Amino acid sequence: MNVRDVLEAYRQGEIDMQRAEQLLRMDFLERVGDHTLFDHARESRRGIPEVIWGENKSPEVVADIVKRVLEDRQAVLVSRVSPAHVDVLKRAIGADLVTYVEGPHLIVVDKNPGRPKAGCIGVLTAGSSDIAVAEEAKAMAQVMGCEVVTEYDVGVAAIHRFLDPLSRMLDKGVDALVVVAGMEGALPTVVSGLVDVPVIGVPTSVGYGYGGKGEAALMGMLQTCSPGLVVVNIDNGIAAGATAALISIRRRR
Amino acid sequence: MNVRDVLEAYRQGEIDMQRAEQLLRMDFLERVGDHTLFDHARESRRGIPEVIWGENKSPEVVADIVKRVLEDRQAVLVSRVSPAHVDVLKRAIGADLVTYVEGPHLIVVDKNPGRPKAGCIGVLTAGSSDIAVAEEAKAMAQVMGCEVVTEYDVGVAAIHRFLDPLSRMLDKGVDALVVVAGMEGALPTVVSGLVDVPVIGVPTSVGYGYGGKGEAALMGMLQTCSPGLVVVNIDNGIAAGATAALISIRRRR
Amino acid sequence: MNVRDVLEAYRQGEIDMQRAEQLLRMDFLERVGDHTLFDHARESRRGIPEVIWGENKSPEVVADIVKRVLEDRQAVLVSRVSPAHVDVLKRAIGADLVTYVEGPHLIVVDKNPGRPKAGCIGVLTAGSSDIAVAEEAKAMAQVMGCEVVTEYDVGVAAIHRFLDPLSRMLDKGVDALVVVAGMEGALPTVVSGLVDVPVIGVPTSVGYGYGGKGEAALMGMLQTCSPGLVVVNIDNGIAAGATAALISIRRRR
Amino acid sequence: MNVRDVLEAYRQGEIDMQRAEQLLRMDFLERVGDHTLFDHARESRRGIPEVIWGENKSPEVVADIVKRVLEDRQAVLVSRVSPAHVDVLKRAIGADLVTYVEGPHLIVVDKNPGRPKAGCIGVLTAGSSDIAVAEEAKAMAQVMGCEVVTEYDVGVAAIHRFLDPLSRMLDKGVDALVVVAGMEGALPTVVSGLVDVPVIGVPTSVGYGYGGKGEAALMGMLQTCSPGLVVVNIDNGIAAGATAALISIRRRR
Amino acid sequence: MNVRDVLEAYRQGEIDMQRAEQLLRMDFLERVGDHTLFDHARESRRGIPEVIWGENKSPEVVADIVKRVLEDRQAVLVSRVSPAHVDVLKRAIGADLVTYVEGPHLIVVDKNPGRPKAGCIGVLTAGSSDIAVAEEAKAMAQVMGCEVVTEYDVGVAAIHRFLDPLSRMLDKGVDALVVVAGMEGALPTVVSGLVDVPVIGVPTSVGYGYGGKGEAALMGMLQTCSPGLVVVNIDNGIAAGATAALISIRRRR
Amino acid sequence: MNVRDVLEAYRQGEIDMQRAEQLLRMDFLERVGDHTLFDHARESRRGIPEVIWGENKSPEVVADIVKRVLEDRQAVLVSRVSPAHVDVLKRAIGADLVTYVEGPHLIVVDKNPGRPKAGCIGVLTAGSSDIAVAEEAKAMAQVMGCEVVTEYDVGVAAIHRFLDPLSRMLDKGVDALVVVAGMEGALPTVVSGLVDVPVIGVPTSVGYGYGGKGEAALMGMLQTCSPGLVVVNIDNGIAAGATAALISIRRRR
Amino acid sequence: MNVRDVLEAYRQGEIDMQRAEQLLRMDFLERVGDHTLFDHARESRRGIPEVIWGENKSPEVVADIVKRVLEDRQAVLVSRVSPAHVDVLKRAIGADLVTYVEGPHLIVVDKNPGRPKAGCIGVLTAGSSDIAVAEEAKAMAQVMGCEVVTEYDVGVAAIHRFLDPLSRMLDKGVDALVVVAGMEGALPTVVSGLVDVPVIGVPTSVGYGYGGKGEAALMGMLQTCSPGLVVVNIDNGIAAGATAALISIRRRR
Amino acid sequence: MNVRDVLEAYRQGEIDMQRAEQLLRMDFLERVGDHTLFDHARESRRGIPEVIWGENKSPEVVADIVKRVLEDRQAVLVSRVSPAHVDVLKRAIGADLVTYVEGPHLIVVDKNPGRPKAGCIGVLTAGSSDIAVAEEAKAMAQVMGCEVVTEYDVGVAAIHRFLDPLSRMLDKGVDALVVVAGMEGALPTVVSGLVDVPVIGVPTSVGYGYGGKGEAALMGMLQTCSPGLVVVNIDNGIAAGATAALISIRRRR
Repeated sequence: MNVRDVLEAYRQGEIDMQRAEQLLRMDFLERVGDHTLFDHARESRRGIPEVIWGENKSPEVVADIVKRVLEDRQAVLVSRVSPAHVDVLKRAIGADLVTYVEGPHLIVVDKNPGRPKAGCIGVLTAGSSDIAVAEEAKAMAQVMGCEVVTEYDVGVAAIHRFLDPLSRMLDKGVDALVVVAGMEGALPTVVSGLVDVPVIGVPTSVGYGYGGKGEAALMGMLQTCSPGLVVVNIDNGIAAGATAALISIRRRR
Repeated sequence: MNVRDVLEAYRQGEIDMQRAEQLLRMDFLERVGDHTLFDHARESRRGIPEVIWGENKSPEVVADIVKRVLEDRQAVLVSRVSPAHVDVLKRAIGADLVTYVEGPHLIVVDKNPGRPKAGCIGVLTAGSSDIAVAEEAKAMAQVMGCEVVTEYDVGVAAIHRFLDPLSRMLDKGVDALVVVAGMEGALPTVVSGLVDVPVIGVPTSVGYGYGGKGEAALMGMLQTCSPGLVVVNIDNGIAAGATAALISIRRRR
Repeated sequence: MNVRDVLEAYRQGEIDMQRAEQLLRMDFLERVGDHTLFDHARESRRGIPEVIWGENKSPEVVADIVKRVLEDRQAVLVSRVSPAHVDVLKRAIGADLVTYVEGPHLIVVDKNPGRPKAGCIGVLTAGSSDIAVAEEAKAMAQVMGCEVVTEYDVGVAAIHRFLDPLSRMLDKGVDALVVVAGMEGALPTVVSGLVDVPVIGVPTSVGYGYGGKGEAALMGMLQTCSPGLVVVNIDNGIAAGATAALISIRRRR
Repeated sequence: MNVRDVLEAYRQGEIDMQRAEQLLRMDFLERVGDHTLFDHARESRRGIPEVIWGENKSPEVVADIVKRVLEDRQAVLVSRVSPAHVDVLKRAIGADLVTYVEGPHLIVVDKNPGRPKAGCIGVLTAGSSDIAVAEEAKAMAQVMGCEVVTEYDVGVAAIHRFLDPLSRMLDKGVDALVVVAGMEGALPTVVSGLVDVPVIGVPTSVGYGYGGKGEAALMGMLQTCSPGLVVVNIDNGIAAGATAALISIRRRR
Repeated sequence: MNVRDVLEAYRQGEIDMQRAEQLLRMDFLERVGDHTLFDHARESRRGIPEVIWGENKSPEVVADIVKRVLEDRQAVLVSRVSPAHVDVLKRAIGADLVTYVEGPHLIVVDKNPGRPKAGCIGVLTAGSSDIAVAEEAKAMAQVMGCEVVTEYDVGVAAIHRFLDPLSRMLDKGVDALVVVAGMEGALPTVVSGLVDVPVIGVPTSVGYGYGGKGEAALMGMLQTCSPGLVVVNIDNGIAAGATAALISIRRRR
Repeated sequence: MNVRDVLEAYRQGEIDMQRAEQLLRMDFLERVGDHTLFDHARESRRGIPEVIWGENKSPEVVADIVKRVLEDRQAVLVSRVSPAHVDVLKRAIGADLVTYVEGPHLIVVDKNPGRPKAGCIGVLTAGSSDIAVAEEAKAMAQVMGCEVVTEYDVGVAAIHRFLDPLSRMLDKGVDALVVVAGMEGALPTVVSGLVDVPVIGVPTSVGYGYGGKGEAALMGMLQTCSPGLVVVNIDNGIAAGATAALISIRRRR
Repeated sequence: MNVRDVLEAYRQGEIDMQRAEQLLRMDFLERVGDHTLFDHARESRRGIPEVIWGENKSPEVVADIVKRVLEDRQAVLVSRVSPAHVDVLKRAIGADLVTYVEGPHLIVVDKNPGRPKAGCIGVLTAGSSDIAVAEEAKAMAQVMGCEVVTEYDVGVAAIHRFLDPLSRMLDKGVDALVVVAGMEGALPTVVSGLVDVPVIGVPTSVGYGYGGKGEAALMGMLQTCSPGLVVVNIDNGIAAGATAALISIRRRR
Repeated sequence: MNVRDVLEAYRQGEIDMQRAEQLLRMDFLERVGDHTLFDHARESRRGIPEVIWGENKSPEVVADIVKRVLEDRQAVLVSRVSPAHVDVLKRAIGADLVTYVEGPHLIVVDKNPGRPKAGCIGVLTAGSSDIAVAEEAKAMAQVMGCEVVTEYDVGVAAIHRFLDPLSRMLDKGVDALVVVAGMEGALPTVVSGLVDVPVIGVPTSVGYGYGGKGEAALMGMLQTCSPGLVVVNIDNGIAAGATAALISIRRRR
């Protein structure tokens, strides 16, 4: 018995108000999972595109999922893909819709690339090995409508190396910084002590031996004494980019 | 030889420009550590008050530090204190300046409590044991000039328990959410899937056995599949509050 | 605008069916968090009493919570209490409602202790240090209406020591076994290889050195090669008792 | 000297009762390991088929073991196999006896696939990467005679996505739920808070960075505050399926 | 100046006793590292053959080391080799000296395989995957002159399965038992509770998920409550075999 | 129906041989758990006295257990006791039966302290903080009838410091060495390279920082390249002493 | 406005001293990141050549970086390279500039190999598997101008094996020792107890099972009771060589 | 038979040279452990005073050990003491010999405090909580004859705060730096990038949550990309001070 039936039965006097109310609550429990109704609201509200984990999925399966997602949405990302995924997807939905970001092996599909800029964030990396993760953050934020200013390989072993690029970035008015670093991961801590915008630290799985694979970097960022620094999981550039974009977009609204 | 001396010597023609430039750079290296000059810029820029770790410091030592900090700043927090710290501090700087937040054993000293509201954030906890950490976040954000809306003990074992309080909070226009949870720490993940503002997860050291002391909660929040969620270290409510306030204040500026 | 108002407005023809349906869905979102409505359904459905973590809560706070819970429910457990909690609670709700289980420092409050038996489970421990945890499991299952057969300290260092008590237990027709063990935690594995009912292993924080505090026991139970064994967290007798009771009660229904 | 010899010697008066008793106990110690006698009892009692770990065993070795097991038993599973294992086994025992479950690379051999249904369980997964593990649970439960209702990829990032499938499953009368989830592993906790049947959580090795490879999922499930949830080791779908089937079969008996 | 020179100079009266003593001590410090002198004593005393780690060494390098070692010693083992190592070594020192043990990929070179038996030990494994490690123990003990009685795949999931083989082994008079087990590693604990000879537990890297790769097995064996059980590192069959042989050989001397 | 009844019935011709055999097997299953019958055999066979964990047991409870154990056995140890345990026990069973070993807070009760020496082992410690654990090993081995030669605090930071005491110990003919060491735990490795008797390493919980609480010591001993070394858990002197005694006693038999 | 402009404006009286000072400080903040100015000072001061991580960089990219670095510097190291890197680099900058160190897969480029010796250090390894890491230390120290004395494979299982090589090394006047060891990593501890120069321990990722991959070695070295020993990360021969060279070079200056 | 006896017997012709040589080697093995002979050489060579761990030793025991050590040595340290230790020791050896360092609860006993300065090192801390550990390093280096320059609480959250103190320290000509830091432990890394003397990082057990108790600090220091940095264990100021002093003393010799 669905909502309309309940409403009708109530108007006809077949059921009283108490019974009607009870039936309506039951109906909700059955329907609340309905994707069409609910997810669309959420999607437009959050503005974060769906992310598909490409690894371990065949190019054909990925192409199918992308096509289905694009029916309702403007954009979708596919992470950790091979060249075969790119080829198959281009054939499936048209080459001009598919952008391949080489560093992080990421596919960006965006039906509306010309959308007006809605925000501005900065992305820095400590070393050159951290760039692929930074590019994930950048791609995600761009699809969400943000301008992204990047400064890569600014290091921290010698303090002064990042002061200049950091200054340039702040001059451009970024609302949040994504700072990507592996090994001992000190860059986000130092940056956070110098700026007045929130900093999202992204530890990367660069490094070896004790504390390698991102563990030392993650620990150091969480342990840091500088308020204003928050963290995402190792190598999770996409989450960092999404959060930085949320911050900036809301501010510009 | 300080800047003024160099400038004077140069104007007098005692040294040439090259030498003057060289001397000025040297001067910088000696002076750059000068707290008065530099920290003030940073303090006013970031708006985050100094936090003093009270544990293992005697009440007298804490009172001395607080007095020194207040010479330059508007506010200071002292975390993990005992009642003796509160008493001694009240005698040292006047009782009306000292606010004691009981849950987290936190002292707030604010010379300017009437400052106009500069932002608005929300703070939720999963359980009642998480409230002390949430109160740290609240106190920090308030000192930074934010209005703080709280909903405590909204749980996640039964899904529906937090939908209503969450709705109320979003209606008030919060710019960021601090979500505090121990044990399995699932609340920030679930909240993050429902809202369009950034969520800062704070794992707490509640829980026992495997994954106790906040480890499961931290892991779960970092591992979560929901972009838009960032994390601080276990029990670090202060850092979460500071970052949420940074986000909101910048937006309102 | 609540459900009744919508229904009335619809019957009066003030709104059409489409608008009524839309309003009703909104109403749900606002109300779904309503504890009274929802939790009662869940409580009666699951039959698992509320458990209050007594540690770090004052006797007065615990007494207040218990009183509030008892308004809607038949039973409540308070874990990790001190004698002071027991005294205050007895004064608050009457001594005859309050049962104190000494080993696990657990309070059981049951308004309906004479309920007909709804199931039967068995609880074994490897050593005498594991008994407190076993008593938690027993108390929880009893409140849920189960008969509980116990055999404590049956060990595993010498194989034969548990065959006899195990036989006795199976003869009584238990539907599930809770097997509690610390140190190397081998007992649940061995038991599970001998019986045809599901076994719930509870590692305890007994043991020291490498693998102490329950880690070896938990690992061993998870690593075991015997299908039919499932596990709860270290020292979590309450969860084990609740699950075993769920299994038995459903069977007898 | 075996039992019969002892009995004969005693009847003949060659040994007295005390000596006979002593000899009989010794005999037992030598014979108790006799597989034929003992294992058959156990097998029929527990109804859990033998599981062979196929990885690192050659197809020929696997085929030999399967043949030997089938002499006494109705069914056997071979986990983690390659296509070569399937081919060789089909040739060895006949293709119609061999069912290959592709996701988990599992071979099911069942001499009696038409057995009447003895129970009914439900299997859910959070994501599509968790399906292979879920299929292991399903295959095991089916061989044990259970009907298995599945709902895959119901997620938890958005709460409402699993309410509907969960409802459908409960309507079919399942006696236990197997809930499979990787990453932060929150689904079993949330499900367990909504249903009145026991829930067996299966963490999967999906996820990366801190808490990856199933660690966060396992921790979260063990740490959960919801009684009624029990856990098996990471990726151990077979054990979860076996336990769920034990629960349901016993209930229906 | 060597010992002989010092002695001569002293006899000639060229140096006094104090100086002679001083010189002799210096000489020792220079010579104590002399392999030929010292190692031979140790070798004959301990009777444990040299073990060469073959992995990551080319067949030629291994052949060279083996030849050099055989100049002074009766036997040598090369662990973790490939077929190429076997071929090259056979050509280098003669095929009849080289025995290849397939399971553990181990080469045994023994110039004196017909030595009289000097001891007797037993080796058991829980599963068939543990046999390669057991074969390492067996090979080491045999080269040291021990008879080795083996019983493989005796399991522990069902208690009774190992009682019979264990009895047979004790009847043969073994002086020590090596018990090899992966996964939860309970077999050594149970065996140790039944016998009066020392038991050396060898955890193997069999198993997956939490506690996999031998961690649960090692922990369980160390945590065990049964005195009489000692442990070696994961997969270290060679050390277990050597220690068991030391125990038995000394007893028979 | 017990063994004697079956035997009688068979002799009377009331049952035939097949039935008798079946009944006798059933009888075993019921009786095999009988402590009196079985444990005594085991006790006399293994010669290892019962060890009671005194911590967390009241003096009265300990005294009761000791009295019960002494009915059947010659000796019993109670570990981790307080002075109150000693006093109460002396009053309960007579002061002359109770020996208190101060270092490890251990009570030894031995009804037959004058038993002839059955073996000889050596116990060394690296530092003075390791002595309490060594004394546990010594007490256990003595109760089992071994002579125990000790050399404490022989260190390894300077190599030569332990050569002399080691020599003295070997001269006395020890059959096994227990070597106790905390911090980096290198002593057992070095000793094992110099002697031809088995060495049992006991890591102690001495040490701090990374690898503290015995973890570095345990790892180092397990990782050591010297065959002939086996290990027990951190601080488990009792297990080491029991195993060393087993080795020596068997040799002397 | 740069320094010269400020100076000129001040001399011209266009700005006063206060303004000049303010402008000069601002200028610094913009320039302090200038690599040319700053890094050169640091390079000549520290004398540590740049190290490029070759792994995951194409030969062409590596050749480009090396060429750029050589514009300003005397030497550069490229670690973890393949033969292809060597070939491409030789073609790019001339074969005679490129030295390939085979063990650690390391390229050394040194424009000034004939520089006068500026120091002397010693490098020892415990086993032959540790030599590649030792060769990294050696190459780094040599490029920094140190003579390097090596003694490889001196072991510690038998104490005496390293006394002789150690003596030889000290006779040559080394100012610091790099001691490389895997497995239990005891060699640096023992060496440190015998010498009066600082010892830098390098744990290597040799070893397996519990404490394998260098963990036991690192822990043991950190836990050691011998002052005078310091440590670098697992397999980090380059850092050890650089620090040892810094120590020796400063001494000789 | 000692060296002198052998020499005499040889001169008397009672034994021949071969026998004499053999006897002399044996003598060495017995004597090499002789503390008086050997340790003195080592002590004077290394110049590192004995360190006694005071915790868990009674004041009387500590006083006894100190007295014995002072018979042969100039200085001794007693770490982790209580006021009672100081009092008893002052009474035992005279108050003027005993210096108590309050921060680290350390006693320094130095018979020769006026020794000429033999070196100069610097000690920095990141925070005020790290000072006690730094004072341990300072005390050790001073007893070894070094001048110690300290700069405490120089932080790293704001980069510029340590440049000035660092400059002052280098101007004084320190040969090595001890840099003490807890939490994320970034200071040693940053310092090491700026100076041309070796840096010894000391992680402290300051910090909480994930990576607390010094783990993040230790990891970060080991993981750092800056060659020239070496590390000691968490809180081990004494070892850092000893190594820094060794470096400086050797340089000045």
